[in-house]
Amino acid sequence: MKFDENCIFCKIANKTISSNVLYEDDDVMAFLDTNPATYGHALVITKEHYDSFLSCPKEVMHKVMDVAQRIGQALIKELGAKGINIIINCYEAAGQVVKHFHVHVVPRYVAADGLTIEMKGNLKDLNLPAIAKSIKEKL
Amino acid sequence: MKFDENCIFCKIANKTISSNVLYEDDDVMAFLDTNPATYGHALVITKEHYDSFLSCPKEVMHKVMDVAQRIGQALIKELGAKGINIIINCYEAAGQVVKHFHVHVVPRYVAADGLTIEMKGNLKDLNLPAIAKSIKEKL
Repeated sequence: MKFDENCIFCKIANKTISSNVLYEDDDVMAFLDTNPATYGHALVITKEHYDSFLSCPKEVMHKVMDVAQRIGQALIKELGAKGINIIINCYEAAGQVVKHFHVHVVPRYVAADGLTIEMKGNLKDLNLPAIAKSIKEKL
Repeated sequence: MKFDENCIFCKIANKTISSNVLYEDDDVMAFLDTNPATYGHALVITKEHYDSFLSCPKEVMHKVMDVAQRIGQALIKELGAKGINIIINCYEAAGQVVKHFHVHVVPRYVAADGLTIEMKGNLKDLNLPAIAKSIKEKL
């Protein structure tokens, strides 16, 4: 199993650093964010070190997403959250701080809380068919 | 296959409404957001109607995430994006507008673009071990 000795999430995965664990199996671990955006803000990580969602093998990624879904369902059904945001940041340009694949599961209770997501492109005159073609060809 | 006649993404999935398609198979469709936060902002949806990520069967959800990963990889490797944000909003309290499971794949090029994600919890004196216990018991 790949381990990066400078990675804080590797240390959480192997218990060198303690965390408030929500779930754990051979491949996946979930724990509370120590600097939560909202009450119950959780992180789901792979135990093995992958630098981001984009480099994680599918089978392991599926397990991470399953745990994210289960935690989201529990927060809604059992713990009073009104909504859930799932956020995965890939690379520094997208706000990824710890370079180890992790999924944020952020429960929402009221609109004005610790998480803001704003999408305001204001992009005019884009040639969407041409953009679609250029992406499609590379998939 | 469950279809909601009032759902815009069901209409995109069955081609009643046209879109700039990036990918399509029996279960999943990806297309460009018509109001993109950034250049290449894509949406990945299930063809069948599920109200959110939280209610989507695992097997189908995995397929959606696989396509999101492939599009993210292509945007980085082939199209010059410097980062990718994956965002899934579940329920209105989390900013979900169209009530049909969809994943945003948002390529990032520069910090000051059309997407802002801010996590500023400022939550003091939380009893994280107690919160963890309450979630763990409900999983």
